[in-house]
Parts: sequence; C-alpha cells; structure tokens
Amino acid sequence: MTARSFTFAAGESGSWRIVKMRTIVGPPLAEAPRLNVTDGVVASAGGRVAWALQGVTSNERYVTRSERSRLVAKQEAPGRSDATRAALIPIRKNATWWDLPQDQRRRIFETQSRHIGIGLEYLPAVARRLHHCRDLASHEPFDFLTWFEFAPSDEGLFNDLVERLRATEEWKYVDREVDIRLSRDRN
Amino acid sequence: MTARSFTFAAGESGSWRIVKMRTIVGPPLAEAPRLNVTDGVVASAGGRVAWALQGVTSNERYVTRSERSRLVAKQEAPGRSDATRAALIPIRKNATWWDLPQDQRRRIFETQSRHIGIGLEYLPAVARRLHHCRDLASHEPFDFLTWFEFAPSDEGLFNDLVERLRATEEWKYVDREVDIRLSRDRN
Repeated sequence: MTARSFTFAAGESGSWRIVKMRTIVGPPLAEAPRLNVTDGVVASAGGRVAWALQGVTSNERYVTRSERSRLVAKQEAPGRSDATRAALIPIRKNATWWDLPQDQRRRIFETQSRHIGIGLEYLPAVARRLHHCRDLASHEPFDFLTWFEFAPSDEGLFNDLVERLRATEEWKYVDREVDIRLSRDRN
Repeated sequence: MTARSFTFAAGESGSWRIVKMRTIVGPPLAEAPRLNVTDGVVASAGGRVAWALQGVTSNERYVTRSERSRLVAKQEAPGRSDATRAALIPIRKNATWWDLPQDQRRRIFETQSRHIGIGLEYLPAVARRLHHCRDLASHEPFDFLTWFEFAPSDEGLFNDLVERLRATEEWKYVDREVDIRLSRDRN
C-alpha cells in the first residue's frame, strides 16, 4: 500500500506507440510518436522528450468497503498479454472541487455521478491504474493520471465508458483533460 | 487550494528552538538545537542539518460540510505574535490503516475517535497546519507532519489535546510518532 511512483514520458522511444491525442478541455500536450512508462521517478528524461508526467499510486479516497469488495472481485491488473491497447488520461479538477468537503465530493463522485458504479460495468475488460499527482512537491500540471489497458476488440467498450463519465456531474469540475490512445505489439 | 510545500529542517539554525523531543512510538529522530521552517522544498539543507522533513498542505480527507463550518468559525492561522510555543508532530500510520476503505477510515477517525470533535474544543487557542507526505515521490519517513502553535499559557491545554487523541481508536494505527516541542522569542 506504499505509494509507488510512475513516470509517463512522451518522445522518440517507449514500448507504447501514441496513436491519437485528443484534448478534451484545457491546454493540449505536445504531440509525440511514443510513450515510455517507467516505474519510478525519472529525474531527467533527456532532450528527446516532449513531456513527462509523474504520479503515485495511493490509498483510495472515496470507495466504501462494499464497493471495494465488488471492485476487487472483478478487476484485473495492467500487463495482460492481449491488452495491446491503452489510454493515458491526465485530468485536472478545478479549485471549486478541491475546496469541497469530503462528504460533498463523495456525493458528487458516486451518488450523483456513479463513477464507481459505471466503472464496475467495464470490468474486467478494462484494467485501470490511478496515479495521484496533486500532492507531489513538484507542482504537476494535472491532478490525476489514469492508465487503462484493454484488448483491441474492447476499444468501443472503453470509448463508451469514458463518454459516460464525461457526461457526469463530477466532470463539470474537470478543467483540463487530454485523452491519449496507445498501441503496442503483443507480448 | 493548491498544495503548498513546507520543509522542517532540524540543525544549528532556525527561528524555533527545540525544547524537547519525545519519541511516542517507533524510531526516534536525531536531537538538534533548532528548527528551520521553510515554505517550499529545500533541495539540500547542507551539512549542519540533523534531519529534514517535507510535506504539502492539501484538501481535507474526512471533514464534512458541517464540521468544516464549525472549524472555519473557530480556527486561527499559525503566525500569531503571542504564539511563541509550537509542536511539530510527525506521524506514520500502518499498512492496515491505509488499506481500509474510505468509509471505515472516516468511521474510525470521527465516529469512534472524535478526532475533529476533540480538536474543535481546543480552538482557537491551538492553531494547526497539516502537511501530507505519504504521496510525495520522495518516500518520506512519515505520512503526516502536524504543526501546532499556541501561547505559553496554553501549553497544558495542548498537552491535554494530544493525550486525548493518543488514547483514541485511530491512534492504534499509528506506528511512528515523535513529539517535538519548540519555543521562539515574541515577534
């Protein structure tokens, strides 16, 4: 349960090919051909890097015990050999969101927006790992980096998932979002 | 509401004199005569530093709207000229705590331990600023650094506050805690 750092560096190298980058809201990220996902913090990724985002896995912030049980029963970890498609979706939420007390954020997150409930419908097809960046000392440009992996045949399913989430009450607080789609060769 | 970094460096310099350091549980911190509290992250504090702890202020994790209203109505910020006594209390919670879902952590935190309710009784005498360190990429030795300031005449009150919190259910999850008492000249 200790925080684990990950760095996502876009540039000339990396095992994931960047297929498409779409800016949903806020400023875009620079285009690049490949993405390198590294376990740990990369001090300096060198001159050929277009951008590097870092985040840490952490404890859950909204999930209850019963929701946790349902998630754990269905979810799978990233790294499956047939999951040759991925999405990196960096998100920032506005100051209004962060200034809300915990009970109101929870209410918007699940009671109104069904974030967990919607996500559950797409398990185990879509594997997911959430990285927090807001509390890093380095003042990152996003609050969260979510990494998703799925098989090519589940891409439509994944598109449906993100469209449903973007239509929720919770997403009204998102003021920066980039949707980065990736592909790799089968292991 | 953006995260703000603070560094607490113990050594030969700093406006706060370390009066007493008491290890409550877990490994101690090295003794030093003074504490330097810096806004920001100090890359390297130099050879005369016994230890340096860093943390960031962040959004609240457990407080509800009604609790927030009561806190805001009563609390005062650090920096009052008559608050010449302070305490820095770094805390780490064990893996069992962090693995609990949000609803159970909230229940232990407030329903069973009355962390917010107890704290409210000591406002505005005791000013408080909480720093999170668990999600920093740098793998800090503690999860939280809490900074308290009060007038010399309120030291007994403050001792009462920390003793009551240490007797709670929540504190059974604390596996490292050092209580550092400080003093400075009046502004």
